[in-house]
Amino acid sequence: MTPSSCLAKVAVMGATGYAGANVAAQVLSHPRAELVWVGSNTYAGQPLSEACPWLRGRTNLVCQPQDVAAAARSADVVFMAQSNGFAMAHAAEALELGAKVIDLSGDFRIKDTATYEKYYGRPQTAPQLLAEAVYGLPEITGDAVRGARLVANTGCYPTGPILGLHPLIAAGLIDDRDIIIDAISGVSGAGRAKSTLAYHFPELNESLTAYRIATHQHTPEIEQALSTAAGRDLVVTFTPHLAPVTRGILSTCYARVAAGADPEGVAQRCRDALMVAYAGRHFIRVLPDGAVPSTKATMGSNYCDINVFEDRRARRAIVVAAVDNLGRGAATQAVQNMNLMLGLDETLGIDMPPVFP
Amino acid sequence: MTPSSCLAKVAVMGATGYAGANVAAQVLSHPRAELVWVGSNTYAGQPLSEACPWLRGRTNLVCQPQDVAAAARSADVVFMAQSNGFAMAHAAEALELGAKVIDLSGDFRIKDTATYEKYYGRPQTAPQLLAEAVYGLPEITGDAVRGARLVANTGCYPTGPILGLHPLIAAGLIDDRDIIIDAISGVSGAGRAKSTLAYHFPELNESLTAYRIATHQHTPEIEQALSTAAGRDLVVTFTPHLAPVTRGILSTCYARVAAGADPEGVAQRCRDALMVAYAGRHFIRVLPDGAVPSTKATMGSNYCDINVFEDRRARRAIVVAAVDNLGRGAATQAVQNMNLMLGLDETLGIDMPPVFP
Amino acid sequence: MTPSSCLAKVAVMGATGYAGANVAAQVLSHPRAELVWVGSNTYAGQPLSEACPWLRGRTNLVCQPQDVAAAARSADVVFMAQSNGFAMAHAAEALELGAKVIDLSGDFRIKDTATYEKYYGRPQTAPQLLAEAVYGLPEITGDAVRGARLVANTGCYPTGPILGLHPLIAAGLIDDRDIIIDAISGVSGAGRAKSTLAYHFPELNESLTAYRIATHQHTPEIEQALSTAAGRDLVVTFTPHLAPVTRGILSTCYARVAAGADPEGVAQRCRDALMVAYAGRHFIRVLPDGAVPSTKATMGSNYCDINVFEDRRARRAIVVAAVDNLGRGAATQAVQNMNLMLGLDETLGIDMPPVFP
Amino acid sequence: MTPSSCLAKVAVMGATGYAGANVAAQVLSHPRAELVWVGSNTYAGQPLSEACPWLRGRTNLVCQPQDVAAAARSADVVFMAQSNGFAMAHAAEALELGAKVIDLSGDFRIKDTATYEKYYGRPQTAPQLLAEAVYGLPEITGDAVRGARLVANTGCYPTGPILGLHPLIAAGLIDDRDIIIDAISGVSGAGRAKSTLAYHFPELNESLTAYRIATHQHTPEIEQALSTAAGRDLVVTFTPHLAPVTRGILSTCYARVAAGADPEGVAQRCRDALMVAYAGRHFIRVLPDGAVPSTKATMGSNYCDINVFEDRRARRAIVVAAVDNLGRGAATQAVQNMNLMLGLDETLGIDMPPVFP
Repeated sequence: MTPSSCLAKVAVMGATGYAGANVAAQVLSHPRAELVWVGSNTYAGQPLSEACPWLRGRTNLVCQPQDVAAAARSADVVFMAQSNGFAMAHAAEALELGAKVIDLSGDFRIKDTATYEKYYGRPQTAPQLLAEAVYGLPEITGDAVRGARLVANTGCYPTGPILGLHPLIAAGLIDDRDIIIDAISGVSGAGRAKSTLAYHFPELNESLTAYRIATHQHTPEIEQALSTAAGRDLVVTFTPHLAPVTRGILSTCYARVAAGADPEGVAQRCRDALMVAYAGRHFIRVLPDGAVPSTKATMGSNYCDINVFEDRRARRAIVVAAVDNLGRGAATQAVQNMNLMLGLDETLGIDMPPVFP
Repeated sequence: MTPSSCLAKVAVMGATGYAGANVAAQVLSHPRAELVWVGSNTYAGQPLSEACPWLRGRTNLVCQPQDVAAAARSADVVFMAQSNGFAMAHAAEALELGAKVIDLSGDFRIKDTATYEKYYGRPQTAPQLLAEAVYGLPEITGDAVRGARLVANTGCYPTGPILGLHPLIAAGLIDDRDIIIDAISGVSGAGRAKSTLAYHFPELNESLTAYRIATHQHTPEIEQALSTAAGRDLVVTFTPHLAPVTRGILSTCYARVAAGADPEGVAQRCRDALMVAYAGRHFIRVLPDGAVPSTKATMGSNYCDINVFEDRRARRAIVVAAVDNLGRGAATQAVQNMNLMLGLDETLGIDMPPVFP
Repeated sequence: MTPSSCLAKVAVMGATGYAGANVAAQVLSHPRAELVWVGSNTYAGQPLSEACPWLRGRTNLVCQPQDVAAAARSADVVFMAQSNGFAMAHAAEALELGAKVIDLSGDFRIKDTATYEKYYGRPQTAPQLLAEAVYGLPEITGDAVRGARLVANTGCYPTGPILGLHPLIAAGLIDDRDIIIDAISGVSGAGRAKSTLAYHFPELNESLTAYRIATHQHTPEIEQALSTAAGRDLVVTFTPHLAPVTRGILSTCYARVAAGADPEGVAQRCRDALMVAYAGRHFIRVLPDGAVPSTKATMGSNYCDINVFEDRRARRAIVVAAVDNLGRGAATQAVQNMNLMLGLDETLGIDMPPVFP
Repeated sequence: MTPSSCLAKVAVMGATGYAGANVAAQVLSHPRAELVWVGSNTYAGQPLSEACPWLRGRTNLVCQPQDVAAAARSADVVFMAQSNGFAMAHAAEALELGAKVIDLSGDFRIKDTATYEKYYGRPQTAPQLLAEAVYGLPEITGDAVRGARLVANTGCYPTGPILGLHPLIAAGLIDDRDIIIDAISGVSGAGRAKSTLAYHFPELNESLTAYRIATHQHTPEIEQALSTAAGRDLVVTFTPHLAPVTRGILSTCYARVAAGADPEGVAQRCRDALMVAYAGRHFIRVLPDGAVPSTKATMGSNYCDINVFEDRRARRAIVVAAVDNLGRGAATQAVQNMNLMLGLDETLGIDMPPVFP
């Protein structure tokens, strides 16, 4: 290989949204990738560094109209950071043109099309691609990601709870019939395009609230992944909350201790299971006994911090997981998937320290 | 009565902390009360308006050393807004001097002394007063508050969950064996004196975390109040979270639908029960179907906003309650209790609109 | 007068914006006023308490289409809390129907029509009303406000700097040829309707920036008021900044010490002048030597906190003023003007303590 | 050189404060440096990743007592991120042991010892080192930094104003007799150790205030650097403000247009001068006409964003500069200085994109 061929060419569709711009920023700093094409519905024709002024001085690329063929012809890997429905309609064309596709929307995350339609309010119109698509949560599905042409990047909310609960269910440490996931998210999860009254600064600042209670579209995604661990279909109750922070999701997950097991010590048994499951995985940090994850300790990074607590009186294990919703919950996880698909070390280009304070 | 005798004389011990200063501010504006004495450990000898500069121009009172006798001799009602342990040691003296006492600490909230000691890490040393003390949650225990000399003002976290769950348990609408309460609080709940690294602005800002998981001292307070509704001892799992807002607690409470009941429609049945329970109570707002409470809509007021949702698949009712932790969760609720103790309308002096945005 | 006639009937046009809703909330609690009519472009036909959920339980009024005649026929006082241009077009009709009008827009603030057109980008189309309109900054123009039919409520930014600088210029303590005003505002000043990307929570949160540098429309308003004190036309440099807080404006105003005067002691001389100028005015708090105003100490109130500092080396006096931009900078100041217009005590209904913390 | 000798060994004294921990984090990711030693007063004996949990998984170093000899013997470069006074007392020892020293305190920034003592309240006790020390603002003093043994890293506030004003004064575009600098800072500038009431989250959140008006110790630092450009001693008025954000300083700098010059067009003339002065300097971004710098667009990076505006009526140029106070204002600038001292490309290891949103 010539040196220049070492660089994977990358296109980002939807590069001026929060997830897309973060993918673009990471690729611009990536030692083995090169950003060659960016697309935007809103800013086509403008330099990316004008649409995203924080990227001034980092790229001269001009935003293109969202033409999949143009993206796929330019690039080895196409990231689709578009609203739901886009990848279903356009991923096939990109794949046919030989590009690998990493989709950051919900289009290919839910294997059951009826469930998809129920939660997303639209039919899944690309069932063949759905069958091929690999759910991209590297520490859980990384082997499949490595060989994939099409990866459905994990949703922001599901990342922490799945990473925290999957090994515990697989190890039989918790009762999978009684799981509640209570999550708090920063506002950037709403995206950049949705500048409606609901996300108007004065309406949200200093406010705590919940939304889409028991109806959020990430519920079936969590259930699907955890059902794989359980070996049977399970149901979770999931409540997303909104707090006035920009980035970060903290998930507090409740499960009964497995029937017959001693609730005393379950936290340590769970922590042990997590350490075994994630041995050698750089981006998972299982915290020491008693240390509570906080989103701030992961901000700007690809880390997922996890710990487990016990409520002996109620016979419950309580799993707390923290991620940066735009890092591990979107953009840097997407690049981690890209690294796997390209046969690279999964940490390449995304091993920044958290920004603290 | 002469006009001046219409004014109840009020003393606030701990008037320079957040709860105490908010009591003082409300009493200063109260049409039937007069602030006559303020005490402070830290600021004794300084004008209250220097220790609390936001009160400049509203009072000339000077902070006194925390002498209970002086407070009680000056006043008809003594608010004790001190750290745990103070009221246990000093309430008796105030009562003997003929003052009514409203304690904002945890000292008299827990009827079982072993439980108190377990959670508060100190023995309850005033069991006779404990027996007399009335738990002061006006819409639940208001009748007892009216005749009380000593009221234990409800804790900040318990206020919302008890107001939201008590009528549902009493009505048999939910299964009381499986309750999880997940609450998010603003930082003012930590008080003003605790300016440690944990509450240092840069450490907390933009961070979401949990603390005292399954061990928080408000757990038994919630259990005690809900057990009264259930007619048997119940256990709840309670997880407090901290978000970077100043004021507000949002509580999300999970319970299974009562055995045999249809999960469809449980939200409306619960809402109906709440409306019956709180008919005519100005400060409880049961929101319309689908409207999610937010702390911001209660900020600066004595309101508790409540609504109920249903997760039919998991057979759960989800109760969401919002309060201002320093208003309804502390100071204005304490004044509401004072109003009841003095035979006044419960809304007097505390019916401010929420400050929005 | 019969008791019921003691209540002034009030209409609020634009009642679902931030300024209008705050006027409405204050009027609902006002002992001598009654809210009888509310109008809204966006929410006509909906209850005010649905459009502004924080007002649930406080009023059953339904938002009306913005018909001036309907408002003016219902009310003694009509508040116009609309975007610029509305009052110019409609105030005449309200006045003809016998209502007093308090306009919260910029329409009647600038006496020079060419200046108005330059800064507001539209012609002043009601010059006769403009001639009649009284600029409503109670502690400066209160005498005129008392007899007025039409009051132009002071803008949010000008309130602090004018209150801080006017007496110093009038007393000849500072050089009026070299004034710089550097102000930082919370985001609620942008209003509720403008939920654009610029005010999208993630874009603004944790950001500090400036805007409309040397071109902001409040510049001529400040110049006009201070020119009155100076007795000649003066020019100020004004820079508004935006910080991620909801409410509050802090203004830092720089002026050279008057020619020939000693810069040492100028702070105290200025403070003395302010105390003389505002003796007996409840809502102006001149802070003691060295105490820096903060917006938080005024939040939710009608106070303006002012103090003066000196830079001896540069021969400058530095005046710092803090207000709540929606309280003293808009809604409560508008009610203060109403009180004066109705011959009431200026503090009636708006003497809430600041909400702290 | 052997490959391993390519890595400069680095010690950080005060590694658990905000500036020190950020230096440590950058060095841990630096391609040509190796973190070998960390010291801490508070956390000696504990792993750095416990004292700074966000660094978990990135280093196994244990915090040492603050022994300069141990630091200097271990390392080629010693960063001193201590409170004022430490470097004056200990830098000599480190230098004698052959280490280069980069001091992040104010100890060696002020060449005039009387001025130092006046503003810092302590004598400068190491005048010989002071004479040798190079003021470390890379784009201004980089040539001297390259050959230095001891560098005084620029203060957080001075960085933006000096970078923005120095070329304009040198080019004679602005009048240097009338400069006012009005700056707004995030709270992390207070450091991590000062967790006092002043920085307690509830006291600061949602508050805007000023402090040390006309007396801040960064005033003489700015004056010294700008006097070099002016060729004569100048005086500036400097007012620091505090806003409830974690990171970032926005500086708004006012200066009269040079005598006789046309105020129209001065913004563009200034922008041109900045572009000439900073041609080829990656970390300075002169923004296009009309674009206002915001701290958020620099957050987590080493960029300084600058633009110039004009107030023709007042004949003023207004320079606005934005930096991350812990990045460009402290830690990453310190690493930039290290790069220069080591003969490396100045961008090595610190060319992260800003974290946005």
